Amino acid sequence: MKIAVYPGSFDPVTNGHLDIIARSRQLFDKVIVAIAVNPNKKACFSIEDRLAMLRLAVEGFDNVVCDSFSGLTVHYAASVGASAIIRGLRAISDFENEFMMALMNRKIAPEIETVFLMTSTEYTFLSSSAVKELARFGGPVTGLVPPQVEKALYDVLGVRFQPKEEADQ
Amino acid sequence: MKIAVYPGSFDPVTNGHLDIIARSRQLFDKVIVAIAVNPNKKACFSIEDRLAMLRLAVEGFDNVVCDSFSGLTVHYAASVGASAIIRGLRAISDFENEFMMALMNRKIAPEIETVFLMTSTEYTFLSSSAVKELARFGGPVTGLVPPQVEKALYDVLGVRFQPKEEADQ
Amino acid sequence: MKIAVYPGSFDPVTNGHLDIIARSRQLFDKVIVAIAVNPNKKACFSIEDRLAMLRLAVEGFDNVVCDSFSGLTVHYAASVGASAIIRGLRAISDFENEFMMALMNRKIAPEIETVFLMTSTEYTFLSSSAVKELARFGGPVTGLVPPQVEKALYDVLGVRFQPKEEADQ
Amino acid sequence: MKIAVYPGSFDPVTNGHLDIIARSRQLFDKVIVAIAVNPNKKACFSIEDRLAMLRLAVEGFDNVVCDSFSGLTVHYAASVGASAIIRGLRAISDFENEFMMALMNRKIAPEIETVFLMTSTEYTFLSSSAVKELARFGGPVTGLVPPQVEKALYDVLGVRFQPKEEADQ
Amino acid sequence: MKIAVYPGSFDPVTNGHLDIIARSRQLFDKVIVAIAVNPNKKACFSIEDRLAMLRLAVEGFDNVVCDSFSGLTVHYAASVGASAIIRGLRAISDFENEFMMALMNRKIAPEIETVFLMTSTEYTFLSSSAVKELARFGGPVTGLVPPQVEKALYDVLGVRFQPKEEADQ
Amino acid sequence: MKIAVYPGSFDPVTNGHLDIIARSRQLFDKVIVAIAVNPNKKACFSIEDRLAMLRLAVEGFDNVVCDSFSGLTVHYAASVGASAIIRGLRAISDFENEFMMALMNRKIAPEIETVFLMTSTEYTFLSSSAVKELARFGGPVTGLVPPQVEKALYDVLGVRFQPKEEADQ
Repeated sequence: MKIAVYPGSFDPVTNGHLDIIARSRQLFDKVIVAIAVNPNKKACFSIEDRLAMLRLAVEGFDNVVCDSFSGLTVHYAASVGASAIIRGLRAISDFENEFMMALMNRKIAPEIETVFLMTSTEYTFLSSSAVKELARFGGPVTGLVPPQVEKALYDVLGVRFQPKEEADQ
Repeated sequence: MKIAVYPGSFDPVTNGHLDIIARSRQLFDKVIVAIAVNPNKKACFSIEDRLAMLRLAVEGFDNVVCDSFSGLTVHYAASVGASAIIRGLRAISDFENEFMMALMNRKIAPEIETVFLMTSTEYTFLSSSAVKELARFGGPVTGLVPPQVEKALYDVLGVRFQPKEEADQ
Repeated sequence: MKIAVYPGSFDPVTNGHLDIIARSRQLFDKVIVAIAVNPNKKACFSIEDRLAMLRLAVEGFDNVVCDSFSGLTVHYAASVGASAIIRGLRAISDFENEFMMALMNRKIAPEIETVFLMTSTEYTFLSSSAVKELARFGGPVTGLVPPQVEKALYDVLGVRFQPKEEADQ
Repeated sequence: MKIAVYPGSFDPVTNGHLDIIARSRQLFDKVIVAIAVNPNKKACFSIEDRLAMLRLAVEGFDNVVCDSFSGLTVHYAASVGASAIIRGLRAISDFENEFMMALMNRKIAPEIETVFLMTSTEYTFLSSSAVKELARFGGPVTGLVPPQVEKALYDVLGVRFQPKEEADQ
Repeated sequence: MKIAVYPGSFDPVTNGHLDIIARSRQLFDKVIVAIAVNPNKKACFSIEDRLAMLRLAVEGFDNVVCDSFSGLTVHYAASVGASAIIRGLRAISDFENEFMMALMNRKIAPEIETVFLMTSTEYTFLSSSAVKELARFGGPVTGLVPPQVEKALYDVLGVRFQPKEEADQ
Repeated sequence: MKIAVYPGSFDPVTNGHLDIIARSRQLFDKVIVAIAVNPNKKACFSIEDRLAMLRLAVEGFDNVVCDSFSGLTVHYAASVGASAIIRGLRAISDFENEFMMALMNRKIAPEIETVFLMTSTEYTFLSSSAVKELARFGGPVTGLVPPQVEKALYDVLGVRFQPKEEADQ
């Protein structure tokens, strides 16, 4: 059985992440979506909230499970028997950072392969931080995150959604 | 009447910004140079100081006005009746970030177009942060910022300009 | 009146080109779509055919006209009174080439500005050569070129459209 | 059973290609290395020779087979029941071209995923054309291509290998 | 005598830095490896520790000396009579930042040239921050930093090296 | 004595090349500007003409000599005792190709270092092929090539320089 790990912050999960998860589960027998716990990086949502949102979002994907881990991604991947780490590439990506991580991970654990998949072009501009920036200023996030995440986003950020007509006045 | 918004931090305005403003006012009937107020980003100059410096710098440009705004750029652009957002590209730019912002803005307000103009090559290396870094260490900023900004920069940073000969001793 | 020239080979015009034309005509009073005649570059369609297809494609755009020219783009732009040259950027583009042309044009005619617009992300992968490559092998081009161009493409290339089911057998 | 196609010109196969094949066969149950026949692209080796060299090079890889095809890659991939197309990325790659092909292929056949793997950094500079350029001038290709390909390369190009000491005289 | 300065944070020195130092000393009569003191950038090691590690690492390189400086790099370079500033480029680099610094430095001191050398591909993924990230999670850094730095790294970060087998349990 | 080779096609030499030559001769005791003879690449000027133009252009640079060679660049560099190969980088360059060549050359001759220098930003858009394209259509090349090359360019291309006013009519 081929197992892949799809690591990330998922703060929060976006439709771009879901796009990659849906593609990954066609290629692997089992996909583990895993929140990397990084105490040095300030997150918007707690690990528990992120995990809960992820689980709602992947409901119905029978070969996908969600988890969280601390430490090195390759150590986690090895501990769950994965042969691949999944990363999504957008046409506009931070390639340098992606490739350096992939090569670093290969250096530590050569038996685990990083596999890059292209995100759908409709999500080219989409990232968790873009979504948070947008929501923070009361912009619309419908279609950018799963429906379950939408309301949580405004709640946590303490803002009220502001339709453009209203903003124009 | 075609109106364009040229948004930025302008902390402080540089000759590279002025280059883009001068180009934009040939293409549009009215250009609004607008300081985006971002409470999460620590600035060197206050909004008032930045606005005052901008106004001095664009003096004599009869179809250019200066303003500041908080919230989403596209909301502001819509509120002032703009059909375009101007962005300057240098040969060496953070294209990824520029294009993601442009696509995100299009998603929110498809009727407002982002227009990219090339900055003059003589300003390829020039950015507000490069200017501040330079001034902070007492380096020369003449020719990089408008004359009005020069002295303000050393004053605010609390440094004294240090000619190279002096530094060499 | 602000006039812009949108130059290209248009061999043939694609929906990506049409996307840029539609955006340009919101920004300028008049847009001239101009086929650059390059005797050193082997084209698939004749100038006459390309011009005819362009004209069909922009039908209904009241401030858009089509033309062809030989020689330098900036000379042509100056001769028709244009203040801007339009170029489309895709998230995946040959930026180097685009920026070098823009800077070269500015060197020859500093009063004409190159204006870059972002193509819609749904056309990120789309280019005239990609379309020809696709058609050459009997692939589907519906949605990639205007309907008028579709049939012409298979005719000129001398291939028959081959639905995937058929290809699979 | 998960089947992947690894398409290319393989003119000739290099150690960089072999690196990707070795990685792919850990991820998929079966890997088909497939020479894309392109009548418009002048090749150095015949299809037969390229196929023979490929077969020698992958000897011992029990889940790898070699083939050639004409037409669209996605049509071929569908005809052999593949769910993935493999592409190798080097730290220095023609990303634009790679990503445009991947998006174009997705447009035609959304059910087939393009999977990008990183080539080992020791092959960063390696390509079939670099190898041919090198061999053409009598440079050393040991370690860059499989041993079986080495002699064939000098034979086909009609040059004699020229050790550097000899060249220096 | 041609003197070159190789500036950096060296927090800590890596084998990638040593690779560039070894290349530089073949090209210049004297190479000064100089730690740029930046009070605004939080470092992991003190200036003294970084300097001590650097000195151990370059032992035996007879035309290399180590130093530290505050202020602008070009001011320092001029004060020590250097005609060149050395920068290492990896296949995956932050080119934008490198080139902007080089152009800014040329603006201030046109007589000092920035010279770019390619780091060995085996260090493509290697940076001081990658090494610290790796060590922080107990990953292996052997082969990435000089032996003298290895132990210091775990000590300063307060972690214990964790072999992968142990992590897998 | 440190010797550097600056290889290229120089078809024809531009002011961008001269900029790099002027910088190189400050760093090395002797610079050999060397035309790489490539029978597979169609040139505009003969080797003899290119060499003659180069020699006129570097007149007065006492530590610069001109030459031509066929075969591999590193073989030539070794034969003349060079320790470095010079390459110019523009802010807009074909980095991929440059870095692949540098790494390939290092693979063949590790003792010869490729040294990258930044071309002046005023020549960002300048290349031999851009100059030829420009001259071919009767555009102005003053300031882009040495005065000696200017007339030769129009003569060889068989065109007459066409001032813009004339072109506009």
